[in-house]
Amino acid sequence: MSDPTVLRDNNRAFTEERDWVKFHDPKSLLLALVGEVGELTELFQWLPAAARAQEDPLHTQAGEELADVLIYVVRLADILNIDLSEAAFRKLNGSSTRYPADQFRGRAPEKT
Amino acid sequence: MSDPTVLRDNNRAFTEERDWVKFHDPKSLLLALVGEVGELTELFQWLPAAARAQEDPLHTQAGEELADVLIYVVRLADILNIDLSEAAFRKLNGSSTRYPADQFRGRAPEKT
Amino acid sequence: MSDPTVLRDNNRAFTEERDWVKFHDPKSLLLALVGEVGELTELFQWLPAAARAQEDPLHTQAGEELADVLIYVVRLADILNIDLSEAAFRKLNGSSTRYPADQFRGRAPEKT
Amino acid sequence: MSDPTVLRDNNRAFTEERDWVKFHDPKSLLLALVGEVGELTELFQWLPAAARAQEDPLHTQAGEELADVLIYVVRLADILNIDLSEAAFRKLNGSSTRYPADQFRGRAPEKT
Repeated sequence: MSDPTVLRDNNRAFTEERDWVKFHDPKSLLLALVGEVGELTELFQWLPAAARAQEDPLHTQAGEELADVLIYVVRLADILNIDLSEAAFRKLNGSSTRYPADQFRGRAPEKT
Repeated sequence: MSDPTVLRDNNRAFTEERDWVKFHDPKSLLLALVGEVGELTELFQWLPAAARAQEDPLHTQAGEELADVLIYVVRLADILNIDLSEAAFRKLNGSSTRYPADQFRGRAPEKT
Repeated sequence: MSDPTVLRDNNRAFTEERDWVKFHDPKSLLLALVGEVGELTELFQWLPAAARAQEDPLHTQAGEELADVLIYVVRLADILNIDLSEAAFRKLNGSSTRYPADQFRGRAPEKT
Repeated sequence: MSDPTVLRDNNRAFTEERDWVKFHDPKSLLLALVGEVGELTELFQWLPAAARAQEDPLHTQAGEELADVLIYVVRLADILNIDLSEAAFRKLNGSSTRYPADQFRGRAPEKT
């Protein structure tokens, strides 16, 4: 994978070149994100639980929909001035503390 | 931002250390992704359209929820053997061709 | 509006006549529900906040997508043996108690 | 189940008594709907595919979250002047024509 700041910057340039910044308020981008997540879930909804989507066309389609989701996540972080990579590493570190491996081994954390 | 392969690898190590790989089939991870997207939308649902979430605690909370969304996107790409960064750049390039800047300036593309 | 038990029963008959009951486990139906929610959000994502979708084709499309969402909500309730109407009235009554009108007038409840 | 117009009317009265109508534009309600869908998916995400949530507390929680989803669906239909029940029956009839039982028996329709 390459530098995520490049993805953010290309994404921003793409938006600015089309004068679409005016559409990119947080609530609109969130709805667009949900739309892409929905396109992704539709690929998997009727597949068996064990399916891993390793064959085409599903593999390529899943990559395209995941990419669309990522693009909106990166764009949302950009307009909200969030350092997404930093936030993700901090969250993962927090989870490591919150769910000690020896206490949660093989056991899904319950939602509270 | 730092290297996204590190995020993927840390994510994978976190999962393996807890023996949670068995929970991470695509459909389960998709439902978890939706859960995190829902936590993100709840932060913004009653805010004015113009709100940009620049103040805390909202700014930090939005970063945490976006991070959770990214973590599941990265984890899904990992189990599906998708090069997420490559897929995102390809998608963005495809959109540049599909929506020429001079034809779509200031005009949102219609969903078809 | 007509009797919601008829909608549930027609929905169930539609599924059984096609031998699709085997696809309708909770996780699969939830992913299908998300897909329909995504089709609904895509209709509104780039519209102004004030848009109310009173004109066609948007009005009809919104009705169709909301209907799809409802159909999966009703189907999920059916397979989970949930009396959806009873649950909805109980929830609404609970919210009336939880958010007394005189304390929450004009003020959105914060997510906690 | 009881009359869905009563649910719509109670829902509307609840909103008006709190002066929350001003928060209920379509985009905000859609984000709230997604939030409730996310709370529902979180209940099921790590459960086995075969789990049917017949025991409490999960059964009751699923009912509460499904109710929240329904409440926002009904509220959205109300502000958009959509007859939800009529739309749902029309959609179900359309699906019966689109997916003839003898052609689609035991076979999930592909997303196109």
